Amino acid sequence: MQRTAGPRTGAARIVERVDELFAIGRAAGANRPGLSAGEDEAFRRARGWMEVAGLEVRPDPAGNLFGRLAGTDPGMAEVWTGSHLDTPPDGGRFDGALGVAVAVEAIEAIARRGRARRTLTAVAFRLEEGSRFGLPCLGSRLLTGAADADQVRRLHDTDGMSLADAARRVGFDPSTMGPDPARLATIGTFVELHIEQGRLLRAVDPAAVVGVASEIVAHGRWRLTITGQGNHAGTTAPADRADPMIPAAAAVLAARRALSGFEGAVATVGRITPVPGGTNVIASAVSLWLDVRHADATVTAAVVDAIVADVRAEAAAEGCTVMVQRESMSDRVTFDPGLGLEISGRLGVPVIPTAAGHDAGVFAAHVPTAMLFVRNPSGVSHAPDEHADAADCVTGVQALADVLETLVGDINPAARHVGAGDE
Amino acid sequence: MQRTAGPRTGAARIVERVDELFAIGRAAGANRPGLSAGEDEAFRRARGWMEVAGLEVRPDPAGNLFGRLAGTDPGMAEVWTGSHLDTPPDGGRFDGALGVAVAVEAIEAIARRGRARRTLTAVAFRLEEGSRFGLPCLGSRLLTGAADADQVRRLHDTDGMSLADAARRVGFDPSTMGPDPARLATIGTFVELHIEQGRLLRAVDPAAVVGVASEIVAHGRWRLTITGQGNHAGTTAPADRADPMIPAAAAVLAARRALSGFEGAVATVGRITPVPGGTNVIASAVSLWLDVRHADATVTAAVVDAIVADVRAEAAAEGCTVMVQRESMSDRVTFDPGLGLEISGRLGVPVIPTAAGHDAGVFAAHVPTAMLFVRNPSGVSHAPDEHADAADCVTGVQALADVLETLVGDINPAARHVGAGDE
Repeated sequence: MQRTAGPRTGAARIVERVDELFAIGRAAGANRPGLSAGEDEAFRRARGWMEVAGLEVRPDPAGNLFGRLAGTDPGMAEVWTGSHLDTPPDGGRFDGALGVAVAVEAIEAIARRGRARRTLTAVAFRLEEGSRFGLPCLGSRLLTGAADADQVRRLHDTDGMSLADAARRVGFDPSTMGPDPARLATIGTFVELHIEQGRLLRAVDPAAVVGVASEIVAHGRWRLTITGQGNHAGTTAPADRADPMIPAAAAVLAARRALSGFEGAVATVGRITPVPGGTNVIASAVSLWLDVRHADATVTAAVVDAIVADVRAEAAAEGCTVMVQRESMSDRVTFDPGLGLEISGRLGVPVIPTAAGHDAGVFAAHVPTAMLFVRNPSGVSHAPDEHADAADCVTGVQALADVLETLVGDINPAARHVGAGDE
Repeated sequence: MQRTAGPRTGAARIVERVDELFAIGRAAGANRPGLSAGEDEAFRRARGWMEVAGLEVRPDPAGNLFGRLAGTDPGMAEVWTGSHLDTPPDGGRFDGALGVAVAVEAIEAIARRGRARRTLTAVAFRLEEGSRFGLPCLGSRLLTGAADADQVRRLHDTDGMSLADAARRVGFDPSTMGPDPARLATIGTFVELHIEQGRLLRAVDPAAVVGVASEIVAHGRWRLTITGQGNHAGTTAPADRADPMIPAAAAVLAARRALSGFEGAVATVGRITPVPGGTNVIASAVSLWLDVRHADATVTAAVVDAIVADVRAEAAAEGCTVMVQRESMSDRVTFDPGLGLEISGRLGVPVIPTAAGHDAGVFAAHVPTAMLFVRNPSGVSHAPDEHADAADCVTGVQALADVLETLVGDINPAARHVGAGDE
């Protein structure tokens, strides 16, 4: 029996599902830190969507979730699509969530038409945002072996909780975390759809709703620890001050100057912690985190060097010392150029680079990988104002479904998948 | 039976008692936030010292603690001496603690010699540091009625715990907090001994071990909330940024410039909180606290105005807005000039102003009040390096005992106090 109503892809359902996830940890923005109860609840919802779509659902040892639509030819490599379900603090509604909801929707749309030759797998990754444990893309890095499981288990959040303990709290055994080369070997192609984080798409083509990624620029995080002399804010004479907040302020402004000093580079300080952080004390030390990105890793390093040189000069003048620690560095990732150009040509959409890290960037080292972006009129991301219009999300689903259909080979209507949105 | 050993004042005991309090919440520095278990434990220790000294011990409804040595003439007003037992985060070993230990020691020394005409009361105040609940000197302000008990009960710490709940946790009933005019009326003179917080004493007289306070300069705290646009640190183009960290950095540097721009003024930013505070996000807002002090309240206000004007200009250029909130403002406090000069003359010690708030500053509005400072060679305070030599602490006890003896009138050896250090 044919469905009597509803479009080929569920426009209302995409919006509904994105909202459903947003509601979980909603405050000013979305709050589902990696391995929190909120992220875990989002995984239970996504499992439900996959089950409704009739997909065969399985988690992996890192807590990632897969929903398989088996193909008719088990000898052919699988096509994977998906994104992550965690968010930074007060993040956006669409970041990650849209890619998972759209993945399930697109696969369900294909399932309704019949069985393809290749297996299609929807995936939801854990811990893509580095905001809780300091390192991004941990779900995909664990699976591919790009991160060492022992090191990952020992990461701590700012409350001092280890990643292993956080995993236990949401009920999974961290000891099983680790690479899954057998699963990795089944993948033929990976495609991630994501909301655009910026407005480059609009700059390249004001009418474009969807774009394809060419590359992820080199990016990294550095932690600067500036140490001075803690003291009383009222009674310490100017000459007796060694206030680490002074070089810390210089770091913030040096990062801003780098935006104009290095073409195409961005540098940001979004996190700073004076110790002890009292209102009536000169801090004894300040930790601040520097996020720097540029297409070229050499330029990224040069930007960091320039900022650190400014901070060291200010620190020396103030009688403070500076310690610099690289917390993460991701080299430039180039997505499969043939696949990208083919998608761009067929959909008639522009090709753009991105300065944001993604799980797709981790898979690009192993299999042909592509990313689709849905435009974001505000350009805002990792913040509550992040937005994609419902109509644009539907265009995203159609674009992803088109790409997947081309990748999975002939679809046989006689072998329609049971349970895929049918009565 | 006479004691066979030990000096007139217990040098070793002062050091021992200061160390005893320091051990309670010891980390990098002293940690006994107001109404914490640590502050409460310090109060139990101080009660023990008062009992050993044979003082009549009573708490008040605000949790302050008193140890009375009754005088022979109940019609005469009492002489009070003491300080506080709480500390800022990782504060110094001597701040507050020394004044309480020395008060008990000095009274015990007098008690050994006999009974005085006036009653002598050692006092330990709660909540002198404003670091936990935002407002300083709450113990003395509640007693004198300088703070409204309803407002005080509703203050919150940064973890969101109300002062009323914190009081219940350490086992006292916050509903009884409030002014105690009857007790206030019994006080004739208040003297607080404190470690010097700075090195002004040395600048005035390099040989001075002890000094007397002339005044507490006008000081206040302002909270600046700078609001911009939260966004992705990687993908947000320079032109699309409205990063509140930029004007926040300007505030830190403007506060520093005020040190040279306004003779005798100090301005400090020791606490700053970007929201959401992620490593990979441009903050949506930043809160920072500005501590400003100058002898003259008009100059204090001018310093704040100059800093805020700089921040507003930077914020406008960045597309951010600024909200300024005065969290506290204490006008200049002048200590009783006759009493100060008399002490200075008799002890042969210099008179200096201070830029730190003290419980003595609260009492100065009600009764003749004096402060003694013990030198601090490092000049460091509110930090672990705060230090007073043991020999200087003993000089402090002798100075305080001398001042108290002059204030209490004739001591009658025939009416020696029972229990004061005797077998």
